[in-house]
Amino acid sequence: MKAARYHGVMDIRVEEVEEPTGDLGPTQVLIRPRWCGICGTDLHEYVAGPIVTPVDPHPLTGAQLPQILGHELSADVVAVGSEVTNVAPGDRISVMPLVFCGTCYFCRRGLNHLCQTMGCFGLSWDWGGLAGLGVVESYQAWRLPDEVSYEQGALVEPAAVAEWGVAQGGVRPGDRVLVTGAGPIGALAVLAARAAGAGDVYLSEPNERRARRASDLGATEVLDPRGTDVVAELRERTEGVGVDVAIECSGNEAALRTCLGAVRTHGTVVQVGLHVKDAGLDMMEVSERELTLKGTWCYSVHEWPRIMAMIASGAFPVERAVSARTSLDHTVEAGFDPLIDPQGDQIKILVETT
Amino acid sequence: MKAARYHGVMDIRVEEVEEPTGDLGPTQVLIRPRWCGICGTDLHEYVAGPIVTPVDPHPLTGAQLPQILGHELSADVVAVGSEVTNVAPGDRISVMPLVFCGTCYFCRRGLNHLCQTMGCFGLSWDWGGLAGLGVVESYQAWRLPDEVSYEQGALVEPAAVAEWGVAQGGVRPGDRVLVTGAGPIGALAVLAARAAGAGDVYLSEPNERRARRASDLGATEVLDPRGTDVVAELRERTEGVGVDVAIECSGNEAALRTCLGAVRTHGTVVQVGLHVKDAGLDMMEVSERELTLKGTWCYSVHEWPRIMAMIASGAFPVERAVSARTSLDHTVEAGFDPLIDPQGDQIKILVETT
Repeated sequence: MKAARYHGVMDIRVEEVEEPTGDLGPTQVLIRPRWCGICGTDLHEYVAGPIVTPVDPHPLTGAQLPQILGHELSADVVAVGSEVTNVAPGDRISVMPLVFCGTCYFCRRGLNHLCQTMGCFGLSWDWGGLAGLGVVESYQAWRLPDEVSYEQGALVEPAAVAEWGVAQGGVRPGDRVLVTGAGPIGALAVLAARAAGAGDVYLSEPNERRARRASDLGATEVLDPRGTDVVAELRERTEGVGVDVAIECSGNEAALRTCLGAVRTHGTVVQVGLHVKDAGLDMMEVSERELTLKGTWCYSVHEWPRIMAMIASGAFPVERAVSARTSLDHTVEAGFDPLIDPQGDQIKILVETT
Repeated sequence: MKAARYHGVMDIRVEEVEEPTGDLGPTQVLIRPRWCGICGTDLHEYVAGPIVTPVDPHPLTGAQLPQILGHELSADVVAVGSEVTNVAPGDRISVMPLVFCGTCYFCRRGLNHLCQTMGCFGLSWDWGGLAGLGVVESYQAWRLPDEVSYEQGALVEPAAVAEWGVAQGGVRPGDRVLVTGAGPIGALAVLAARAAGAGDVYLSEPNERRARRASDLGATEVLDPRGTDVVAELRERTEGVGVDVAIECSGNEAALRTCLGAVRTHGTVVQVGLHVKDAGLDMMEVSERELTLKGTWCYSVHEWPRIMAMIASGAFPVERAVSARTSLDHTVEAGFDPLIDPQGDQIKILVETT
């Protein structure tokens, strides 16, 4: 079968690889990916990896480079192991890609996404979504509601990341929200805040072309932090108070400082984007304005049905974050390369894998 | 009457000042301070001020330098205005020193300690606790339970700061807690964590003499961060998991980083101490371990009866934080000066004002 495999920095090859054999474990599911999204984590591996893809065998899964990429996917079920009861051949599914041990301190607490030896389908597991076939554990396979398309099914994973940030921020109906960064997670965070009933939702994005692309997500306004003092502007628009919640989706120090300044006293900033270096914060402001700063990581794995229900109802139109589509053969030049262009205007690119 | 007045940096004078006149406003209370504590904020004013003491008339209270200091106090009620019903002449009280407008966005939400024009008795109000007499608003006067001594009554204010930090950290019975900094707030945070039923409570303090002084507070152990890798040590003592909550009471960047490292994944760090400069934080760790960082400021003004009840019951032996006592005449040389000595071993010094 064909698959997009990561061999090392700037080296992703669409090549022939061996298909999974017919010998499924009793709890395993053989799947045929349909649509698969390219994620910021994939881009980090491409540009600066290997980071999370394992050079040595992964402690939980045994996977190691070269790694088939793709962890945001919808699929069809081809076959199931002897003990699998939650899905059956022919089912349309969304894959929850995290693989966890089930026995560590955090898994026992239900915080499986914080598993001490966590792996991930498409990053540190023998199979990935950018391929003709793959194998997942049954707990990773979630049947799609009829109303949810394969394309939407491939967006459940990044939508869960964004919604987890919005939920951890405690966004309530009517709240005023700032989102920084109009990448895929920022775009989905705007949609998730809207789905949570937020009032005004502001999006801050310095890349003009990306900002234009993000203008139809439903944000109250897209602000340009290069030409606008976002903190002052939002204070003025909120009777001097500030926004209730800020969702930082860029992993950028200046954006985080903007969030801390723009949120109201006693408000919450959620760090969803990943920082690659230390950030200098004004802790006096955190103290005297009683701010809360929360880090989030992925999502609770138990949220899948809820995210799919939000999409099925129409309240969470995740497909609006899609900026382009391509095929498995063109994954690199029409997927990864446009996404790493710093002047580019791509947000989320989906790959049709069959 | 005699009062300790702040005139400017390194200039506190115990001098004769005019007594408050008999013309009390209808909601005001004339008090005779009994015991008054010296606070870290007072020390900042002494060493590096004026910071919060007003050079120009304070927007809410009109107070300005020179300022009578002292905002941690017990007192006797001498006289009350015509509309005062909560206290009467002869009552023993603890003073909640914050002065708030009652009408701003935050006051209307009940977050009076975050009032946009907040003032404070003993810092930005015509009167202070280090004096023979003073005037407070009736909402600042809280009758002491019979079981609470005047000395304990002077400790309600810093105890409320520490307890607010512990409460905002969500410390539960049995939780493992780290407190950094054995100053007065750190010492009271150890006692507040114990009062909340915490299991092991660790205190980290680099000043050896202060650490020795703090050894009888009831901490499980006092750790020296100069000779011990506190993060590694606490991981080892918690089966590799980390403490549930960390209370940072020093305003020091290294201590904050220790707290973020020592707290368990999905745990909470509360910033109670005040930072005077930016702190560089590993935001990747905040994300991937889903940490929460909360700033706290003073305390909710509505907590006074609860803190007094905790002290009255014996569960919160705040008097253990007192390291020395002196009289109003010796406030500077036996109060402020020993407290600002970086090699000193003082924690909390109380001044008897009558």
